[in-house]
Amino acid sequence: MTLVATVESTGVELTRRAAKVVPGGMYGHQAIRNMSAAYPQFFKAGEGALITDVDGNEYVDLMCSWGPVVLGHRDPFVTAAVHAQMELGDCLDGPGPVLVELAETLVDLITDADWILFGKNGTDATTACLTIARAHTSRSVVLVARGVYHGAAPWCTPVPTGTLASDRAAMGYFDYNDPDDFDRAVEAAGSDLAGVMLTPFRHVEGEDQDLVDVAFARHVRRRCDELGALLILDDVRCGFRLAYGGSWEPIGVRADLSAWSKAIANGYPLAAVTGSEAVRDAAATVFLTGSFWMNSTPMAAALATIRRLGDIDGLSVMRRAGARLRAGILGQAAANGLTVAYTGPDVMPYLTFAGDVDRQRMTCFAETALASGVYLHPKHNWFMSCAMDDAVIDRALRGTEPAFAAVRRHFGPH
Amino acid sequence: MTLVATVESTGVELTRRAAKVVPGGMYGHQAIRNMSAAYPQFFKAGEGALITDVDGNEYVDLMCSWGPVVLGHRDPFVTAAVHAQMELGDCLDGPGPVLVELAETLVDLITDADWILFGKNGTDATTACLTIARAHTSRSVVLVARGVYHGAAPWCTPVPTGTLASDRAAMGYFDYNDPDDFDRAVEAAGSDLAGVMLTPFRHVEGEDQDLVDVAFARHVRRRCDELGALLILDDVRCGFRLAYGGSWEPIGVRADLSAWSKAIANGYPLAAVTGSEAVRDAAATVFLTGSFWMNSTPMAAALATIRRLGDIDGLSVMRRAGARLRAGILGQAAANGLTVAYTGPDVMPYLTFAGDVDRQRMTCFAETALASGVYLHPKHNWFMSCAMDDAVIDRALRGTEPAFAAVRRHFGPH
Repeated sequence: MTLVATVESTGVELTRRAAKVVPGGMYGHQAIRNMSAAYPQFFKAGEGALITDVDGNEYVDLMCSWGPVVLGHRDPFVTAAVHAQMELGDCLDGPGPVLVELAETLVDLITDADWILFGKNGTDATTACLTIARAHTSRSVVLVARGVYHGAAPWCTPVPTGTLASDRAAMGYFDYNDPDDFDRAVEAAGSDLAGVMLTPFRHVEGEDQDLVDVAFARHVRRRCDELGALLILDDVRCGFRLAYGGSWEPIGVRADLSAWSKAIANGYPLAAVTGSEAVRDAAATVFLTGSFWMNSTPMAAALATIRRLGDIDGLSVMRRAGARLRAGILGQAAANGLTVAYTGPDVMPYLTFAGDVDRQRMTCFAETALASGVYLHPKHNWFMSCAMDDAVIDRALRGTEPAFAAVRRHFGPH
Repeated sequence: MTLVATVESTGVELTRRAAKVVPGGMYGHQAIRNMSAAYPQFFKAGEGALITDVDGNEYVDLMCSWGPVVLGHRDPFVTAAVHAQMELGDCLDGPGPVLVELAETLVDLITDADWILFGKNGTDATTACLTIARAHTSRSVVLVARGVYHGAAPWCTPVPTGTLASDRAAMGYFDYNDPDDFDRAVEAAGSDLAGVMLTPFRHVEGEDQDLVDVAFARHVRRRCDELGALLILDDVRCGFRLAYGGSWEPIGVRADLSAWSKAIANGYPLAAVTGSEAVRDAAATVFLTGSFWMNSTPMAAALATIRRLGDIDGLSVMRRAGARLRAGILGQAAANGLTVAYTGPDVMPYLTFAGDVDRQRMTCFAETALASGVYLHPKHNWFMSCAMDDAVIDRALRGTEPAFAAVRRHFGPH
């Protein structure tokens, strides 16, 4: 019996084979049909800050697998924890001791957490928050910001194909950072407002990112308190990159429920919901489960990830990398006479070009960077990891330099 | 840094600690508050057909972790495949070659599959089937059998706390194996019938199991064909235990879409949707994704699981174990003068006692079996695995013998 894929296939061959057995050739957020045909679809390895596609091309990975990889690919501490747990067991007839140890660790770490429960997908966590909020309040309406991603379930998927209007019957929408529009949505919900779900800052695909207006966050918190509604922080994408205790810990705005996933276990499949004491009883009444939700291996990976982040002060490591990348990117843009917006926190930045009709400049930039050994996304924010030391960032910048030059060459300075 | 839970806690201590940080002490289908307080909540290890709780008690595992463990705990072939994949990478910026190899393997194996896509939870798969069926037909209503479990999402959870009536606005219900009631539900759906979701046989918690009436299955297939609706087989629980090519392969009733999970990767987190050529385009238009859906490690585990099942003819191994268990159980019941129903396929059996008011006999049976080293569930069907050789089954039967005697002692023959 063979243990791993035995046929050494090229990317072209794998793409041809996948087209026969996978609808559309590939699905989901990593399908390159959503990026650019120049991108590799299949990868064979990752190590630290580097990834290698199936044709052997190596890239600095500025996407960190879209967020999960926070320590670096194949982090040795996480790998060792997974191996140790595998020696005992993974999917048993109940959780292992690691669930309790991880739960205690995260409840201790996360400012607003008095309890926790675990799932597999970020969407599991955001959906559970919705359900718990409705159970707690005995109300229906949940407000979310327009265009912001909260997962791929029928109530929130950005592509409504195959979903029904009734799937969103109790959803309301407002513009992020706009207190007047938020109040309008609150009024529309009337006495049926169960909760408000917000990401820590505004990140919408292909758009400049907006940090949260602290006054807006406080306004939402105050209105929720007045109305007995819950404030739900969707920390799936930002969690464990912006602050150890939750992404709104630095601004001091409390969440009643928070959703976590992505970076929680350095790429192993885990998600979590945390909440306040007041919401505990409601959380206990909702039926939340999945066949693999109690698996110990991803929990061991999470425990190792969280401990390692603390041991090395991972957030500082990532902030340093992010600041170095920002300085380099902005310097290269300026040197080429290009006006850019580099938005969001340094650890989760995104770049746009002024006057970029149909994202042509960005596509040129991304494809040239890719050819120069840097993997970044033309439409989605990038991520820093703890494996990005100065040498890695400098290597990335050596790849973005010809990318800016290519934009200048094709589109002229702007 | 410690790699695994360092404090050797007893089950009592872990339960006390969990009560502080987990709502209700534990959540989901493995929470022992749904079983019996006599059951251990926490497990530390599994090996082959055996599991060990945190207090060191060893049990024959007749639950197979509620289905996922099909080869046996820590199957060496699966473990080797996972280790080999971990040497390369797991969560990267796109799938690995193993996705293509696994997809080809399963499309080749599964009779009704022309394509496949992967998720993490069984609920991911059943929900995707719902969405794809609606996308394909541009209709809304999906019919399911009353009381049958299809997952824990708002549209299907058995505990509606926190969900809304609108979450089920387009669901219709009928009695499994009842063609007249099915036709009534079809009539009610009118021209808006998108699909019908069925499990391969009727398994409802705490009830005797019913095999599918082949005439009923054919009737559903025929009505779906007449009406242009899709027949969706929820093979999450039964898949890879009843037949290699899909659980309705032996009766020759075709499914347009099938949902898979549980046994697909011997406990590693993976789910899948397969479908027919006619539905491929619709599947490509629905946005289905999750942060860990492309992870290579569970796919490597699945490839090893499927190949190993074929190499050892795992279904025959499990059928032999199931037949031996059935014969032993029925013999012990008769020897004690107890009337029982032992229902469902031998590889997924369930036991009930005649005249069992409030499930008192079953609780006595299960708790005594547990104390005698056999882990089975008082309300949920059991599962066979390929690690169950004659010696394992005989060991299980040595544990069920005093359990039947205890029922006779406490409740008398019946």
